[in-house]
Amino acid sequence: MCSRMPLAPQKTIERLILYRLLLERLELQGTTNVFSNQLAEMSGNTSAQVRRDLMTVGYLGNPRHGYKISELLKAIRALLEPQQGISMVVIGIGNLGRAILGYFYPLKPKFNLVAAFDNDEHKVNRVISGCRTYPVHQIGTVLSGTVIDLGIITVPAEHAQVAADVLVRAGIKGLVNFSAAPVKVPEDVTIENMHMTMTFEKVVYFSRLARTGGS
Amino acid sequence: MCSRMPLAPQKTIERLILYRLLLERLELQGTTNVFSNQLAEMSGNTSAQVRRDLMTVGYLGNPRHGYKISELLKAIRALLEPQQGISMVVIGIGNLGRAILGYFYPLKPKFNLVAAFDNDEHKVNRVISGCRTYPVHQIGTVLSGTVIDLGIITVPAEHAQVAADVLVRAGIKGLVNFSAAPVKVPEDVTIENMHMTMTFEKVVYFSRLARTGGS
Repeated sequence: MCSRMPLAPQKTIERLILYRLLLERLELQGTTNVFSNQLAEMSGNTSAQVRRDLMTVGYLGNPRHGYKISELLKAIRALLEPQQGISMVVIGIGNLGRAILGYFYPLKPKFNLVAAFDNDEHKVNRVISGCRTYPVHQIGTVLSGTVIDLGIITVPAEHAQVAADVLVRAGIKGLVNFSAAPVKVPEDVTIENMHMTMTFEKVVYFSRLARTGGS
Repeated sequence: MCSRMPLAPQKTIERLILYRLLLERLELQGTTNVFSNQLAEMSGNTSAQVRRDLMTVGYLGNPRHGYKISELLKAIRALLEPQQGISMVVIGIGNLGRAILGYFYPLKPKFNLVAAFDNDEHKVNRVISGCRTYPVHQIGTVLSGTVIDLGIITVPAEHAQVAADVLVRAGIKGLVNFSAAPVKVPEDVTIENMHMTMTFEKVVYFSRLARTGGS
């Protein structure tokens, strides 16, 4: 099925994820059909944009009845949600790594944390939130023969690049970097940064400005 | 001090946070001075941009010796790091809310989680990772007289807007939304979205494409 689908750019994927959320809500409310202009209004896009995006998943609406929500959801999920779930590893078992392990534990089998890695021997060869932990140098052996969709970087900023390099060498093509430092990856690797404390500090700066009247 | 500083736009604040990280690294390595072109190269900006950004914190370099790192760090921290720390509340004590509470607990006193709120009576009137939990309807009383810099939304997507409204009514001017749903806030409130699973799914989509050769 995937081989017949056109490659969707990042923004399209983001919008499809939002449409899925909106469609799930409508379905919960008992709605069965939706028009592109309704989805457009709910998502803050134009109707033309919505129709183009939904063509990406290969589902065409009907001008009279709009899109059948159950069918549309099925088509979007076929693109976004791999049937076998998402396989992930964490590198860096500090406070943030543990929080991530704890967060995803109940999201199995959709999100599967296959293994976690750290250089600290006190943190490895254990099971944390259902996930086994290993020394970083064993990553090749541990992941041998296993396809990993996503590598999650939760090491301190100064080790972020080394961690990214390790994950890339292990053949992982998608990374999420929670460390504060930007890292470089080869062109065929997708990376998204989630700089938590950086985002928090930024919001706080403007929050204080607003409270003190912008002075 | 703040009253004399110009208002820095979002991108400037983001870059200052990055410069701080780079300067902290240089300081650890024993470096005492840095030139704008060095910071420019390390951060991926132009020298002119770096100099403009650093003027925002009111610190001018010296053409011969560049910037004194310790002084520059002090100036950036004065802008970014409120002396009294960052006061925060969490709304939504699910799995993600707990992970956030656990993550920030050791980051006191820089990040202080003052209170957490939920509508589930089984989750309130407890202490989780050092943070007391309360019913949402008590937020006004609990926060009365307390200045909160940041409200963290960790409720399910369908309750995100209500949670944001509650936090805004409590006078909070900065929000970080971890739920999958976008929310609307008044103009004087700053909001940043951190859609974890959405980001993960997006990276996974491109990771799989890269693995299967883009087909």
